[in-house]
Amino acid sequence: MGGIDNLGIETKIEEREDFVNFKVKPLFVTFPKNEEEVVKLVQYAYERGIPIVPWGAGTSLTGAVSCEECILVDMKNMSQILEINEVDWYVRAQPGVNLEFLNRKLMERGFLLPPDPASFFLCSIGGAVSNSSGGMRGVKYGTFRDWVLALRVVLPTGEVIQVGEPFRKNRAGYDLVHLFTGSEGTLGIITEIWFRIIPVPRETQVSLLSYMPDLDSTAGVIQDMRRAGILPEIAEYIDNDVVHALNSQLNAGLRESKGGLLMLRVLAQDLDRMMEILNRWGGDTVQLNQEEWERVYSLRAQSAIALKAISKEMYVEDIVVPVSRLMDAIKRIRKLEEKYQVKMPIIAHIGDGNLHPNILLSDRQRAEELFEEVGKVAIELGGSVSGEHGIGVQKAKLMGIQVKAHGGIKVLEIMKQIKDIIDPKGIMNPGKYVELAYREAKSDR
Amino acid sequence: MGGIDNLGIETKIEEREDFVNFKVKPLFVTFPKNEEEVVKLVQYAYERGIPIVPWGAGTSLTGAVSCEECILVDMKNMSQILEINEVDWYVRAQPGVNLEFLNRKLMERGFLLPPDPASFFLCSIGGAVSNSSGGMRGVKYGTFRDWVLALRVVLPTGEVIQVGEPFRKNRAGYDLVHLFTGSEGTLGIITEIWFRIIPVPRETQVSLLSYMPDLDSTAGVIQDMRRAGILPEIAEYIDNDVVHALNSQLNAGLRESKGGLLMLRVLAQDLDRMMEILNRWGGDTVQLNQEEWERVYSLRAQSAIALKAISKEMYVEDIVVPVSRLMDAIKRIRKLEEKYQVKMPIIAHIGDGNLHPNILLSDRQRAEELFEEVGKVAIELGGSVSGEHGIGVQKAKLMGIQVKAHGGIKVLEIMKQIKDIIDPKGIMNPGKYVELAYREAKSDR
Repeated sequence: MGGIDNLGIETKIEEREDFVNFKVKPLFVTFPKNEEEVVKLVQYAYERGIPIVPWGAGTSLTGAVSCEECILVDMKNMSQILEINEVDWYVRAQPGVNLEFLNRKLMERGFLLPPDPASFFLCSIGGAVSNSSGGMRGVKYGTFRDWVLALRVVLPTGEVIQVGEPFRKNRAGYDLVHLFTGSEGTLGIITEIWFRIIPVPRETQVSLLSYMPDLDSTAGVIQDMRRAGILPEIAEYIDNDVVHALNSQLNAGLRESKGGLLMLRVLAQDLDRMMEILNRWGGDTVQLNQEEWERVYSLRAQSAIALKAISKEMYVEDIVVPVSRLMDAIKRIRKLEEKYQVKMPIIAHIGDGNLHPNILLSDRQRAEELFEEVGKVAIELGGSVSGEHGIGVQKAKLMGIQVKAHGGIKVLEIMKQIKDIIDPKGIMNPGKYVELAYREAKSDR
Repeated sequence: MGGIDNLGIETKIEEREDFVNFKVKPLFVTFPKNEEEVVKLVQYAYERGIPIVPWGAGTSLTGAVSCEECILVDMKNMSQILEINEVDWYVRAQPGVNLEFLNRKLMERGFLLPPDPASFFLCSIGGAVSNSSGGMRGVKYGTFRDWVLALRVVLPTGEVIQVGEPFRKNRAGYDLVHLFTGSEGTLGIITEIWFRIIPVPRETQVSLLSYMPDLDSTAGVIQDMRRAGILPEIAEYIDNDVVHALNSQLNAGLRESKGGLLMLRVLAQDLDRMMEILNRWGGDTVQLNQEEWERVYSLRAQSAIALKAISKEMYVEDIVVPVSRLMDAIKRIRKLEEKYQVKMPIIAHIGDGNLHPNILLSDRQRAEELFEEVGKVAIELGGSVSGEHGIGVQKAKLMGIQVKAHGGIKVLEIMKQIKDIIDPKGIMNPGKYVELAYREAKSDR
């Protein structure tokens, strides 16, 4: 590849793997230091028709940045926090900033950017925006989609645009901020992000850890909580296989029990009603102090790492079902476990119906079949095949099935057309996500 | 127009005007009773290449549904609330439902759909979604954009799609929900809406009415409130001309004062700090009981009606500036008042920097010049020409200037291209909004 050296941008030849072992075999990896260098790289790729793929911290769980013969644009040298505005309540930063680092800096000033994917201590904010990631606080605060005010983006043609404005109320045109958020690097390379931030909440919260009889009763708690009008800040579940993995792999020292753990954080004013609901469903509940809570919160974030330490082959599901359908989903997941003679350890943002059954089968084909069947459970129950991990290559077929079933194939066609107008040469992280989903759904007509 | 009678859909010949007197001179007005009838109407228009425009309650302030020689589709016969789901926390309804009626039904079940445009007692939810309307609670709860989960839409080609899913966490493809929300009827006709709802907040709130020395000190209060990390539920301002109009036109019986009224609703825990800030800026503050508060809230909602009773010619501005730039904005508005020798009564969602200076000049040309100059103040201060009223025909030129200046003309081009792929014949509420903005901005290159 002659020419790349002439751009004067740091470049290496190396191969990579993402968190779930999707392979990345680029022509070369580049490390731009600023937007101008990103523009040069994209222009270079555009002129030559070479695939170009942005890379944050490689924590994708769906192969969203896997590629071959591509230019991989590693954003780690663009990691400046540019401005924290305490009157306008936003932070402006470059995409390579680590999410935990950003929140530490915000908290020093009394602010919070709520979404907290389990990878928060590893991931880049550019990746989190591209993936519209969720997290444990999602039940109360939503996902990254709800916190991006504006973006600077280098388009696949090399043109630079800004979408959105650095404040919340803005009606100047179609909403392109939400189009680029969650576009998984297929519409351009983000070079600057404005996030809405809020003051660290001052309400008194209580933290509860409840040993549940089983997942069904946990779903019962969540449904009754909803009926009671209680909105928790956090409502997480891990089953006992996950607890065991945390104990055996990370010396967590958690008490093991048949039915797994429900972690709840609710307003103090809701404590009595919450306890009543937990008792009704047989929860054995302890109240945690702040230090204990932080430890449990951190362990929850490391659950997938603990599972991965047990089994290198890991398929992380990310289905969502309406909270009202949780028990149906559980029933059907149990049936699939019987059918495939395998137990899927479950991590769940149970408060918003977002379940992560983990498939630890070493037989790749059977794993993929099971993966697809779990996804179809979500679709048939009126849910989604992805709540927060995105689509990448891994979930494209399932996404195609879902959107075709719930929205109509025309919706996929519109997505593909939008991809085409923004990326006319099809070079920006190509062949994945909406492109692949549309292709799969169309061939299946 | 032969043929329309054969569709068997209620049809009338009549002319209309919207709230600010934009004319609507359709070929005929139709009243579909269900989605199938909407499909028939759109197919009819598509085959013949006739403009087709949806109509909710006619409360647009920007000429968003003005048209000539068009088919006007009045949605008033599609006004069913289809489902209130108390576990999944959504309401599903048809576009013709009145917003106040919907919220009354929700409140009977203990739920709330927060956005409350001043027209809440008049507007349809289809219009509110199409316009991504805001309101008084916007400072805390955002605009309609933040509350739409999913939509059924009849596309300009007559195809029916659903975008989004009836729950919050969903990563299945590009975000088209936000694209259709706020698209002002230019991308299709909405036939069904799923809104996220929340339990009626249980925190103890206090309501304050503060007689301020002037608008500048009001801006000072808001900025200091932000610095103090206080997030109000409501922070509204009306100047004394508006108070006077409410008194003279609606017998409001409000106390008049030089500097106008600041209406605040904050958490009880923030009261002491809030009072300290109000005192610092010279506010003369009284605490209101619930009944008094509701009366003031209702009067605030009727402010524009009171002004309109004074002057039939009324241009309602809707600029947003970053809260940190409020004082600069006020200074420049005062200069424009001097230049044009006219006082603009100001209504403001001051808490989020959203100002409505109202232009009551009968000289149309001078009014339009002033309107444009006020819009440019927002653009130059890094703000927006529309926070919540949308663009329609009235603000298209200004929107073009803003997006070109802040985002780049390429952003307008992408919006226009999206319009073209979804509406290939250009029949759906044509010639306005992003189309017009792009045309104006391009000719001005």
